[in-house]
Formats: sequence, C-alpha cells, structure tokens
Amino acid sequence: MVETGGKNYAIGVDYGTESGRAVLVDVQTGEEIAAHVTVYAHGVIDRQLPGSEVTLAMDWALQHPGDYLDVLRQSVPAVLQQAGIPPESVIGIGIDFTACTVLPVNADGVPLCFFEEYRNDPHSWTKLWKHHAAAPQAERINHLAKERGEDFLPRYGGSISSEWLLPKLLETAEQSPAVFEAADRFVEAADWVVWQLCGELARSSCCAGYKGIWHKLEGYPSTEFLKQLDPRFESLYQTKLAGSVVPVGSRAGGLEPRMAKELGLLPGTAVSTAIIDAHAAVLGCGVTEPGSMVLAMGTSLCHMVLGDEEHLIQGVNGVVEDGIVPGMFGYEAGQPAVGDMFAWFVNTSVSEEIARQAAAEGIGVHNWLEREAGQLSPGQSGLLALDWWNGGRSPILDEALSGLLVGLTLSTTPAEIYRALLESAAFGTRRIIETFEESGVQIVSLYACGGLPQKNKLLMQIFADVLGMDIKVAKSTQPVALGAAICGAAAAGSQASGYDSLSDGIRAMGQTKEQSIRPNREHKAAYDRLYAQYRAMHEAFGVPSGPVGKVMRELKRMRTGG
Amino acid sequence: MVETGGKNYAIGVDYGTESGRAVLVDVQTGEEIAAHVTVYAHGVIDRQLPGSEVTLAMDWALQHPGDYLDVLRQSVPAVLQQAGIPPESVIGIGIDFTACTVLPVNADGVPLCFFEEYRNDPHSWTKLWKHHAAAPQAERINHLAKERGEDFLPRYGGSISSEWLLPKLLETAEQSPAVFEAADRFVEAADWVVWQLCGELARSSCCAGYKGIWHKLEGYPSTEFLKQLDPRFESLYQTKLAGSVVPVGSRAGGLEPRMAKELGLLPGTAVSTAIIDAHAAVLGCGVTEPGSMVLAMGTSLCHMVLGDEEHLIQGVNGVVEDGIVPGMFGYEAGQPAVGDMFAWFVNTSVSEEIARQAAAEGIGVHNWLEREAGQLSPGQSGLLALDWWNGGRSPILDEALSGLLVGLTLSTTPAEIYRALLESAAFGTRRIIETFEESGVQIVSLYACGGLPQKNKLLMQIFADVLGMDIKVAKSTQPVALGAAICGAAAAGSQASGYDSLSDGIRAMGQTKEQSIRPNREHKAAYDRLYAQYRAMHEAFGVPSGPVGKVMRELKRMRTGG
Repeated sequence: MVETGGKNYAIGVDYGTESGRAVLVDVQTGEEIAAHVTVYAHGVIDRQLPGSEVTLAMDWALQHPGDYLDVLRQSVPAVLQQAGIPPESVIGIGIDFTACTVLPVNADGVPLCFFEEYRNDPHSWTKLWKHHAAAPQAERINHLAKERGEDFLPRYGGSISSEWLLPKLLETAEQSPAVFEAADRFVEAADWVVWQLCGELARSSCCAGYKGIWHKLEGYPSTEFLKQLDPRFESLYQTKLAGSVVPVGSRAGGLEPRMAKELGLLPGTAVSTAIIDAHAAVLGCGVTEPGSMVLAMGTSLCHMVLGDEEHLIQGVNGVVEDGIVPGMFGYEAGQPAVGDMFAWFVNTSVSEEIARQAAAEGIGVHNWLEREAGQLSPGQSGLLALDWWNGGRSPILDEALSGLLVGLTLSTTPAEIYRALLESAAFGTRRIIETFEESGVQIVSLYACGGLPQKNKLLMQIFADVLGMDIKVAKSTQPVALGAAICGAAAAGSQASGYDSLSDGIRAMGQTKEQSIRPNREHKAAYDRLYAQYRAMHEAFGVPSGPVGKVMRELKRMRTGG
Repeated sequence: MVETGGKNYAIGVDYGTESGRAVLVDVQTGEEIAAHVTVYAHGVIDRQLPGSEVTLAMDWALQHPGDYLDVLRQSVPAVLQQAGIPPESVIGIGIDFTACTVLPVNADGVPLCFFEEYRNDPHSWTKLWKHHAAAPQAERINHLAKERGEDFLPRYGGSISSEWLLPKLLETAEQSPAVFEAADRFVEAADWVVWQLCGELARSSCCAGYKGIWHKLEGYPSTEFLKQLDPRFESLYQTKLAGSVVPVGSRAGGLEPRMAKELGLLPGTAVSTAIIDAHAAVLGCGVTEPGSMVLAMGTSLCHMVLGDEEHLIQGVNGVVEDGIVPGMFGYEAGQPAVGDMFAWFVNTSVSEEIARQAAAEGIGVHNWLEREAGQLSPGQSGLLALDWWNGGRSPILDEALSGLLVGLTLSTTPAEIYRALLESAAFGTRRIIETFEESGVQIVSLYACGGLPQKNKLLMQIFADVLGMDIKVAKSTQPVALGAAICGAAAAGSQASGYDSLSDGIRAMGQTKEQSIRPNREHKAAYDRLYAQYRAMHEAFGVPSGPVGKVMRELKRMRTGG
C-alpha cells in the first residue's frame, strides 16, 4: 500500500463533444481538488477532413483521435500541478466518453486515419456519437431484426438507433470496403483511450451493452442475422469487434511506463474500464439502490434507472446488466429536447420588448422569463405542450414526432409559453416514469444532475410538483467526471487505498446536496389535472393508429419532401 | 325627378366602434367622391359613465347616443362641402351600424340616458355590440330554448350569443327593473339613427334577423318561451320591441325638415332602413348572386353568403331572409381571430433580432415576416395551426376552443410560424365552405374586402391556393360605407334617379378590382394534403366527444379557475 500522508486521489477524465476535462478527486470524500479542460484542436469535424480537400455530406460528424491524447497530456499534468500533490498519491484513473463514438484501428491500436493511405477516406476517422449518416443502415437493421424476430430488439425499446455501433459499421462496410477490410478492430473511443493508457483492450460493458448490442448472458446478435445483414458481418464480433467485455469500474490494467511519464504519474497506476458520460453521472450522484432514477438534465434529458431485475420496457433505449453498476441492471430512457427547447424559445420567440426589459434590469432573458413564469400558478395560462421539439425517444421512439402547443389565446404571453415548455419536460418525464412502473420497475427516488438543475430553480420545482416526489440534486458540478474518478478508485481496489467494489466507491465518493427539492401538494393536484390532458394528447398524436396519429408523421414527410 | 346636371349622389354613413364615417358616392358609378370621419367624443365607455362616479364591471361596453348625431352633423356637411355639390343632387342617405348595439328610449325616441333620472344607471345607455356582461343571461336563454326545442335555435347554429338582443334586454330587466319599465322601446342604434333622420321607426330586417331572432315567416320566439324566460317578456315583441321590420334598402321615410337643415340637405330626401356594417360590405362588393361568399377580413373574419333557399347549417350564426339582399337568404358565419391572431404573434413572439433586421431595412415586422414567409412553399415548414386564438365560431361555436400549433422543431423560425397562422385562417375558411356545401349551399364565387386584402398579399394568395378558387377583391377601400350609400340610392327609387331595387343598385354601384387572385395548382395540391391533417385535428379537438375533445375545454376551465 502506498502511503501519502493519509490523502489519496483518483483522476477522472471526461470526454465530451467539444473538449475533455480532467478532475482530481479526494478518494475519501469525493471532493474535487483540481480540474482542467482541454478543447479539442479539431473540434467536431463536419465539413472537411483535416489537411484535406475532402468535404463531408450533411449528417456527418467526425473527430480526430489525436485530440483525445492531447487531453491526457495537457489536462492530467495540469491538475497534478494545480493540486501540488505527488504522483504516488494518485491511485487510479477512470475515463468517461460520449458513445457510440467509434474508430477503426490496426492490430497495434493505431487509428487508420493516422495512415497516409486512409486519411482522405472519411470512414477512417472517429465517427462521433452524433454522426447521423447511417440512418438508412439503421432502418435496414431494424427491418431485418423485426422480420426475423430477433431477441435483442425488445431490449432496446424496439429499435436500434442510427447513432449506434452496428449501423455505423455497416455504413463503413458498404461505402468504404477498403477501410472496413483494413480495420483489425473497431473500438469505442472510450475503450481506445483505455487501451492507450494501459496497453490492454478491455471493452466497457456500458458501451458494449448500450451501443453495441451486447448482453451479459445472451452475448451478441446471432451469426445468421449478421450474415443476412452482410456476408462480411458473419463473424464480426469474433474478429473486428473481438475483445472481452469487462464491467465498468474494473481494472483494465496498469498505466504503461511511457504514458505514465508523459502524464507525470507512476507506471502501473490502476486504469479502469470506461463508462459512457451520461451513465457516469449516476455514480457521481452516489446512487447504488434499485428504483433510483437519475435525471441528467442538459440540452436533452437522459433518465438512468437502476433495477435488480431485467424487464423489457416499451421505448426504453436499453437495459444492460453491469451497464452502470456491476451486479445491477441499468436502464436508459430519454427526452431528446429539454434545454435545447427552452433555448429555441428564448432565441426565436421572445419579443424585443422583453429583451429590452431584461436588459434594463441587467438580467438575461432566461432569468427574466423564469421570474415571470414563476409568478404563475399551474394551469393559470391554459397552455399545454408536447415536448417533442427534437422528435420522440421514450416511451415513443419516433423522429417524426414534433412539438405541439395548445391553449393559445390572444392574451397568451411569452412567460406563459415558457412555463408551458418547462412543464412539458416534466410531463414527459412523468410519462416515462409511468412506463417504467407499468412494466414492473418501481421508481422510488429521484436524483438530478447536469447544467439545468444548477441554473433553473423553477424548472426543478416544476419537476418535483409534477412528479410528486422529492428530488435530490448532485452536489458536484461535475458529477460525470466525478463518476469517472470513482471508477479509477474502484479499479485501484482497497489494497491501493481505493475500493473493492464500484458500489463502495459510489457510496463513499458520490454525493448530493443536503436540501432536496420538495413537491408542493397543491401544485401537484393541479398538475394531475393537466397531466391527464397531456396523456390524452400524448397517445392521440404519438400512437400511429391514434385519431391524429398521422398528423405529425405526415407533416414530417412534407417537411422533408416526401 | 330632380335634375342636377346629370350627376346624382347618395350618402352612406358607416357607424363603427370608435368613429363614424360619411361617404358621398356617385349613384351612376359607385365612385367615392368625398369622405369624412368623426371620432366619437365618448368612444367606448367601459370604465366609468360620462359625468358620473359610476364605474363599470369587466365585460361592459357602452356608447353615448349623442355621438351618433354628432357624426351626422359634422361628417355629412363636410362631404357636401368637400365635393362642392348642391343639396338637391343628393338623392338618398343610408346607414350601416355595428349590431347588436341597442338602447332604451321613451315614446318620443329620446334615449333614457339623456334623463337626469336614469343617467347614473348603466343600463340606460347604449349597450355596444361587444358588451359581454350578459353571458349568464345568454346561457339561460340557450338552456331554456334547447329544453323546449324552440325552432329558432337551429337557425342560429344552435346558440344565441351573449352579444345579441335578448340577452342584453334580459340583463336590463333583471338588473335594472326601473330602466326596463321606463323604456317605451328598445331599439338598435342603427334604427334609432334612421328614426332621428326621418321620424319613423323602421326596424331593419338585417338587425332584427341576425340579432333579434326575427324570422320573415315565423316571426318571433313564442310567447310561452318568452314568458317562461321572464314573465315581463311575455309580450316583449308587441310592446318594447314593437315596430314593423322592413327589408334593407327600403325607404324608411323622408328627411325631417329640422334634420335636413342641420345636415345641409333637402327635406324629404330618401332615408333607407339600416343594415349591419359587415353585411353592407356584400353590397359594396357588387354581389347579388346566390352561391357568392363575401369574406370581410379584418381583426376577425365574417363570411356572408347569399342563397336562394333556407338551409339550417351547423355552426352558421344566422340565416335570414331579406337579411342582406331582399328576396334572398343571407347566411353569416365567422372566424373570431384572424388579423388579431397575426397581430398577437407580431406583438408577442417575434425576436429582437428580427425587429432589428426589419428596422434596418426600414420596413415593418409584418412586412418582413410576409416577405420571408412568402419564400416558403406549402408544407415546407412542417407546421400546422388551428386558428382558435379567440375561441371557435363556425362551424363549431365554442368559446373554450383555443389556438394550437403542431410540428414545432428546434429549427422552426418565426417566419414559418407566421405562415402557419396565415394558412390556418385559410383552412378555417375552407372548413366553413365545406360545411355550407355539406348542407346544400354551394359556394361558387368568392369576394374579399376589409383591411387585410389591402395590405397582406401573401394571405390572399394563400386563401386562393387553399380554397382552390379565384378571389375577387372589393375595388372600394370603404365597401361598407359604399354599401350604406347603395341603400340610400335604392331607397330613393328610380323616380328620384336612384334604383327600384337594392339588387339594381348593387349591380350598378358595387365593384371589385379587375384582377382576381388566382390559385396556384401546385400549391393547392400540397394544401390538400395539409388540410387533411387540419381536418383531423379540427374534429379531434373541436368535437367534445372526440379523443382529445376535452383538452381545450379542460384547459379553459383551469384558466378561468373552474
């Protein structure tokens, strides 16, 4: 056991869409000691390949794997320096990443885009989670899986997203046979960074389960299915996707000497298997109990639930054993537009007059609206919204669904509409909770983290009122990076002053604020009335066979020229 | 026959909500020679009675009858002076007025509010068309009429509005028995002005039919019904509402000497029975044929249709024989928010950025939006609206209905929403036309008048495209006042160089522009697709038993604290 004057630390590295962040965390308390952000030099590559004339089609989104290494080389030494601690006090390092963010590599793990031969082929680069060009492939995968009655489909709410692994790989195989052929492996960027740190390919159970159609007991989709999809896919999981799947928070290996030197850490320091960024928030919130739901609230809303049984739930995007906390089933659901929807409203639909008033008071328009909307009582505006501004995810997965506002009158004010949008987000979550409970997963406690709980008090109160439950809010402003650091501490194990299980690490290091947000009973009663109407509209427009179930779908077809 | 060098003129006096306007018109051509506006000194009285401490409750709206006489005394001499014509060249005078705008008078026709005894009682003043305080009375009238199966109800689309005659009188009887008792007559302000001009009470068939529940063959509601409503109402129509009902455009009498002197006209000049302002527009558009629909397009939209048979049509607010053109059936339908809905959007929901852009180009926001919306093709935005921002009128009469917007996405722009609102107005009219046709009244030609056709070209093109019909637009910018003048010319008769029938006068003097607005066939096809979805939503939300038929009604109840 390394002795460092009683204090030990873990580092979490959080890879986002535009930048990566390292945080140094006290292993005893979970307290954040230092943090540093490195912005990706190449950002999101969606127009032109770096150093090339090759331009990208719409819906493409790539990244440069070199940017991930820069985050390690710059941000890890930076937090060590900020904290002024010795390398031996750092017992472990954990990684969280966006997913599915996938790249092709050679047998040594070198990205194909690093080779002159492939760098002008867009398929040789990292395909970022929000690369959407594989939509036709996803459609064919879903069609075939339905036709064959494949078992895996119901675990993903009945549909594989175009953002996930198989569609992205099929796109490569079809459009760039050379890159597909040359790839010794395809790896999640999360797993690739771990590989670079410790020289071992340990595929994360979180990435594999939520994005790669892996199941702890049933394994992968059948070879018959894969062969029928594309003859080259028959043994895909045994070759280009080979590599054992390891639970999150396990030790993937020890830090390689060369990498240790570059980062200023000791060789052999424990490196954890990776976790997806959203899911890391569950750890950062200190959640280990079944029936807990964590709301990761930002531009969109991701609902993560821990359960002790596997249930198949309509429109829930994934249920994965070991997916979040080893030994438990992790469920993931979502609403695709929350903060994005509020921002859309503020940017497009707020009058000059209000902008002037807010400026005169020296506050932002968001804050002005929040204050005015906070004066209203539930139901007072007579407005109700369906929050599908970016399509539907849970419980109705359909990109063709769209936003709806009803109850508009000549007296309707922007603050009233703003409040209706906040309420619609809460109603959407209530509908998701009901879907869980209808399928046998009771939700007994709520946690919230992300940007919105920090800055929109009214929103959080509305959530508590609509859901009729207390909401605990993450204490850390970086619960995702904290979650990654907890993985690092768990990978180290107690013999290195860490923890013997991820759950132990979560309980010790994950934290919420002392004050919960508590529901107002009177508001809850009014929201029950409003929610009954929300539900009626949700089914009427959301279910294709519903009485107005064709409306949004036909509008989408017309919008896209169909 | 008076000879005036070949030129003869008629005067139309158009009484609006805030002011009255006189126009002097060439009887041969319908050309407007001179016009003058007199703003009502007391405007709309909705807070406090003039020269009194008495304040008014919400929903009250009164007028001062003296203001009506001021319009005559100021605007009639003004147009004579402007035109520089001799009094003998004016062959007739016609009146149009808002309705139901009603006042109590004594046996000599003196308004009760002119007496010290009554002037502090709000019920002694003119109740303006938009006086809404008689809603409870209207509810009871409708309830009783339904219960008794009264024949008159289906002629008014199944419901009597709180704005109409009977609710306003019942309100007076209940809340001010003294004024009710003292009133020798209750008269429409339209008929009262005619009475002041010629000394004769000639009740207009237009006001009586559309607002007073008069039917040419069946007369008035039964005495049993009236008695059950209020014992004092048993012989209401034989006493306080006595007076023969005379077709519009008939001669009510000749100008009284004293009044003639004040106005600078010859005594005995023909005075026509009055007409409601909206209905006068039909005359001004030159419409005399069955199957013609006139769209009076302003803050709201009033649809007037001529037919040669009586049909009872769901949600059509009135069918009146002789109501618009003698010898024909006049139908009236409506959409309560059109221009008002566009103005709401521009005032509340257009971003600072757009206001800045419009200002930089030196144009109004309306024009900026019209231009941008005009670049879009039908269906391109994926948006669809239900135009019930001010409740529903035709074909579904229900104040609880409200506005709806569907198809919203994170990319939706204000110009797209603006266009969706214009389209919703056109879809609403298409639904009304279908209702007429389903009930046996074919619509073969369309006319438009009012403020909107003058200033919103995109709106008119959208109407033509959605309806798939040519639209003829009134040539006169004041077709309502022109309609009143045509009544004056018809009242004079051919022996005084006027016309022997109102139809003859309309054909000679009413006019539309040479260029019709013609539909674009491609747009029509796209709008047919969109309209199918509009219809589905219209029925789903509009019909109470529909699958989401409770939504708007429940939202309204919650909004109003129910």
